[in-house]
Amino acid sequence: MRTVTLLSGGVGGARLARGLAALPDLHDLTILVNVGDDEDIYGLHVSPDLDTVTYTLAGIEGPYGWGIADDTFMVMDRMAALGVDTTFRLGDADLATCLIRTSSLAGGATLSEVTHRFAAGYGLTPRLLPVTDDRLRTVVDTTTGERLSFQDYFVLRGHRDQVAALHYRGAAEAAPAPGVMSAITGADLVVIAPSNPPLSIWPILAVAGIRKAVSDARVAAVSPLFGGRALKGPADRVMAALGLPPGNAGVLAAYEGLLDLLVVDRQDADDIALSTPETRVVAADTRIGDPAAAARFAAWLVEEAA
Amino acid sequence: MRTVTLLSGGVGGARLARGLAALPDLHDLTILVNVGDDEDIYGLHVSPDLDTVTYTLAGIEGPYGWGIADDTFMVMDRMAALGVDTTFRLGDADLATCLIRTSSLAGGATLSEVTHRFAAGYGLTPRLLPVTDDRLRTVVDTTTGERLSFQDYFVLRGHRDQVAALHYRGAAEAAPAPGVMSAITGADLVVIAPSNPPLSIWPILAVAGIRKAVSDARVAAVSPLFGGRALKGPADRVMAALGLPPGNAGVLAAYEGLLDLLVVDRQDADDIALSTPETRVVAADTRIGDPAAAARFAAWLVEEAA
Repeated sequence: MRTVTLLSGGVGGARLARGLAALPDLHDLTILVNVGDDEDIYGLHVSPDLDTVTYTLAGIEGPYGWGIADDTFMVMDRMAALGVDTTFRLGDADLATCLIRTSSLAGGATLSEVTHRFAAGYGLTPRLLPVTDDRLRTVVDTTTGERLSFQDYFVLRGHRDQVAALHYRGAAEAAPAPGVMSAITGADLVVIAPSNPPLSIWPILAVAGIRKAVSDARVAAVSPLFGGRALKGPADRVMAALGLPPGNAGVLAAYEGLLDLLVVDRQDADDIALSTPETRVVAADTRIGDPAAAARFAAWLVEEAA
Repeated sequence: MRTVTLLSGGVGGARLARGLAALPDLHDLTILVNVGDDEDIYGLHVSPDLDTVTYTLAGIEGPYGWGIADDTFMVMDRMAALGVDTTFRLGDADLATCLIRTSSLAGGATLSEVTHRFAAGYGLTPRLLPVTDDRLRTVVDTTTGERLSFQDYFVLRGHRDQVAALHYRGAAEAAPAPGVMSAITGADLVVIAPSNPPLSIWPILAVAGIRKAVSDARVAAVSPLFGGRALKGPADRVMAALGLPPGNAGVLAAYEGLLDLLVVDRQDADDIALSTPETRVVAADTRIGDPAAAARFAAWLVEEAA
């Protein structure tokens, strides 16, 4: 296992990325990041998952796993004073990232190029790639008949709405970003991060060609559930709303046809019984908020999946 | 003199605007502001003159007459740390203005509408209008054959280049913003602020129809020169480079065919001799940095021009 590619959403994926990045023997680590959560806010191109992964690998992530540690909010406070709805609060340092990204994209750069620029600026070793440079947006239909952008659903309304359906707008027309397909086909192991399956991983798999390439690879997924619940966020509720079975059976169903290995938390060790001829289910301590714990878990995972 | 319209650049115009706004008897004050200095910087639409006038009328202008008092620079510092050239430094509160403007314009609002929104937000009584909602950019040709945007010339290179020619790109195709023409034709008095004639006022006059309307109005200009020199900025050097006579003779030439009255500083009282049958030259204390001095001067000016 020298070459590993991680499919990642935000916080959970960032923490596993940090663990994998700490492995001394890993030859090549690529992180393919969801862009379905990207949004235009205040005229800026915000890429929450890409930034969370970047900031976490740079060791500057905020206390809740997103944003930048010790950031200030001078611009947001001022915009609020001028009457702007600033429910989506971007810190000043975070805003600097978004300003550079927005103007670079307007100047003709691709999201891949901008992502590389930040990663290089922070001296990151893993390769970070948005799953696509094209426009891909997760759209949420609620049971009350509303259609919300992801950030409207997630941030502005605190993911309280009942989800009726998800759409990955643009995914069918989107091309994988340069390097994405080879990172999957050339990987000794593809890891699916403990991210929200429908909201963070399915948009990645929805990009043309990616699901097929992943299905041909050796794949290990890490469940985001603990006793059937997400540590934070609405993964369990969204999965139930979309008709998936509860608990890790739902995670298996979410990734049907893709997994060689599913890692569940040790508190769900009974789920080992969910193993099938295709997918082995194993249990481990999957709490990886602490960097040292993430590194231990990553080392174990790469060994276990070999 | 109940209805006055001021043609304004940045700092000097803002200070005269503040003086005029303090007059209790003024029925209607409109400030037509240069947009030739507007620039796209960091992907933001920066309107230096509009903002300087707005901030000064709101009483929150920075110590040098531009920007916002006690502003912080968290975003700029961060962008600089990420390798961006931040010679053009925007404070965080100033940046909030630019973010709102940029996203509003991208959403289809006009510059007039955005300007009105800010003015209303600050509770300003005078009407602020950009001279045009269309794109108008002052471009500087230097004697070394370079062509610079205004902000490159003014901020990045500190107006050290020798000017060979100025172009007001887009002016010929630009339409006066709604209300601009009637503010000129309906004014009892049009005042030309002590702004840089070629850099701040000529772009206003270059917009189709405006020079003619101003030439038909009763017009008083305030010279920006003191003993032949600008208090700050390159007005005297630019005027000389463009072949205008030195001193207030150059100001008269810059506004040839337009002025009924030219007010020069009392240290240049000898220039009263420049009076012609068309244009009366008078002297007064034209230092209006202090708000009380600006109000006294404005009261005197409106009386004198009657």
